[in-house]
Amino acid sequence: MANKLNLENWVCPLPLKNYPTVVMGHGSGGKMMNDLIQHLFLPAYNNKSLNQMGDSAVLNLSGLGEGAGRLAFSTDSFVVSPLFFPGGNIRELAVHGTVNDLAMVGAKPLFLSVGYILEEGLPMETLGKITESLANACELAGVQMVTGDTKVVHKGQGDGIYINTSGIGLIPGNIDIGPTLAKVGDAVIVNGTMGDHGMAVLSVREGFEFESVIESDTAALNGLVDTILEVTKDVHCLRDATRGGMVAALNEIANSSNIGIEFDEDLVPVNPAVHSACEFLGLDPFYVANEGKMIVIVPEEQAGSVIEVMRQHPLGKNAVQIGRIVEDHPKMVLAKTGIGGMRIVDWPTGELLPRIC
Amino acid sequence: MANKLNLENWVCPLPLKNYPTVVMGHGSGGKMMNDLIQHLFLPAYNNKSLNQMGDSAVLNLSGLGEGAGRLAFSTDSFVVSPLFFPGGNIRELAVHGTVNDLAMVGAKPLFLSVGYILEEGLPMETLGKITESLANACELAGVQMVTGDTKVVHKGQGDGIYINTSGIGLIPGNIDIGPTLAKVGDAVIVNGTMGDHGMAVLSVREGFEFESVIESDTAALNGLVDTILEVTKDVHCLRDATRGGMVAALNEIANSSNIGIEFDEDLVPVNPAVHSACEFLGLDPFYVANEGKMIVIVPEEQAGSVIEVMRQHPLGKNAVQIGRIVEDHPKMVLAKTGIGGMRIVDWPTGELLPRIC
Repeated sequence: MANKLNLENWVCPLPLKNYPTVVMGHGSGGKMMNDLIQHLFLPAYNNKSLNQMGDSAVLNLSGLGEGAGRLAFSTDSFVVSPLFFPGGNIRELAVHGTVNDLAMVGAKPLFLSVGYILEEGLPMETLGKITESLANACELAGVQMVTGDTKVVHKGQGDGIYINTSGIGLIPGNIDIGPTLAKVGDAVIVNGTMGDHGMAVLSVREGFEFESVIESDTAALNGLVDTILEVTKDVHCLRDATRGGMVAALNEIANSSNIGIEFDEDLVPVNPAVHSACEFLGLDPFYVANEGKMIVIVPEEQAGSVIEVMRQHPLGKNAVQIGRIVEDHPKMVLAKTGIGGMRIVDWPTGELLPRIC
Repeated sequence: MANKLNLENWVCPLPLKNYPTVVMGHGSGGKMMNDLIQHLFLPAYNNKSLNQMGDSAVLNLSGLGEGAGRLAFSTDSFVVSPLFFPGGNIRELAVHGTVNDLAMVGAKPLFLSVGYILEEGLPMETLGKITESLANACELAGVQMVTGDTKVVHKGQGDGIYINTSGIGLIPGNIDIGPTLAKVGDAVIVNGTMGDHGMAVLSVREGFEFESVIESDTAALNGLVDTILEVTKDVHCLRDATRGGMVAALNEIANSSNIGIEFDEDLVPVNPAVHSACEFLGLDPFYVANEGKMIVIVPEEQAGSVIEVMRQHPLGKNAVQIGRIVEDHPKMVLAKTGIGGMRIVDWPTGELLPRIC
């Protein structure tokens, strides 16, 4: 797929070579936009559904096996600043964010759409690189980019590039996972360290120099979810801990399932570099965004085997049970502190870290 | 649906009353974003799939009848400036644009997603009004808004609000419509006047005062498509004539189907007000965007009955055959001029009218 895109080549011949940056005409619906589609987007995402170039992609679901009756559908816009950060970039985020949203209801992610809002003056080379690695991220996650749209806004009315991706996945017939399904007694598991993505973006954006480079954890979680579902179909909730971090994800589940959640602060894995950076800035890593971390809620008796299989997957090496679902204090999340007390960990208020995804 | 949203009410009580404008915290993933979802988006778009509040919407396609094996999937971002214009606004465009893309492959539009990119400082009242009429436009078009996402960018990095919608529709088993399927001898039909939308937006944005107010033609075309498909399933191409106008749509079809297209300039309906405005500004109405107009390509022998049924529909009153598909000059569109000559009408180059959708 993506390797058919020759960046040297598409920048050189007419007419793209005449445009080192994006100009308003690239969003016009005319010749320039068509050139962009023919010489950049089609070679990058090359697949049958996209190549039809209809107003909509036509997707054939028959022959995809059981579950064709239930679809998962998700959308996400990405406005991260800067576009490139240690461990990732906006294009990978844009694929991972939507793939993960589909995986969180147990769906097999299949098809993505991409909508670009480009700011006039964006270097054409940046657009090429972003498109190339969006295509690579799709290939890695096993999804096809089948339809797209490009708009260009005047300089000063955007910030380089904003990307929206939407996705469709198929939910197998025997899977029922959702934020309302947590049950009293269930185990609360996370797949690794919390706060990496937010601190990685923040450190490069604000020019902080910490003792070591903090890398984003951006990753597609569908493979890890598949691994879990091979051990047990009895998964109650999955939630990726993005904006608002682990705490927002836990509060959403507590609210939707009308149960209480308790976890042990000391059990939550946090990278030492993230820990010191957060301490320095007065931030709580449990509130900081991740892009490759999730909450897994399963019946207590399944917890052992789920954690075991998660740890064998590259994205679950640090998987650990951090708490459980309780009957007390419905809709509230409580943490056991290091000195043995309990504190309420409420939704984050206001904006901790703007534009981290 | 939308009538459950009480704008007076959601602006007044805590905590939204404290925020007359959008602030960064509304995109935080925390309490403020949750308030926005609970008090604005859920009441506006109220439906079962959305209310589950999972990371993805779960859609049940079984029981929807034949064709469940083929889906249409489309995405569109909307950056129109200004947000409100005669005959419509960005919220209606956002629904119509995606619904129309689905209808153009013969799909029955079912589900939409919405992604907002809000600029810090957007009046909360504007957001409320936009959301309310997005919901109304969905209801009118017969689609459900089932999943969404909200991001907030700093002041000066956006322009009020950008909206992305993506949509899913079901294609009946006996329908096969696409831009590659035009055949030599087919009739080329349009459903009405060309250039209304672009000129409506331009006139209000640039403050032009023409002899009469030009109104956008923004409309959901799925009902009109249904009407056509009741007469014949043998429709070869449908294409809505948005950015780049009728000429871009015809060139796309000529290119994809590898055929030539000829049309008679004098047969193409153009509003008198649009005609004089275009003349005044040196624009060609055939290149100006529409949001409720489409090209319909059917075998010549079906043209009569298709036009007849289109004219009985409010969105097809001025339906007329303007030309036909020819073997000569493949991939090129030619127009018969008023004085009897032929001219090539090539893709528009550059940007005629930026940000008209």
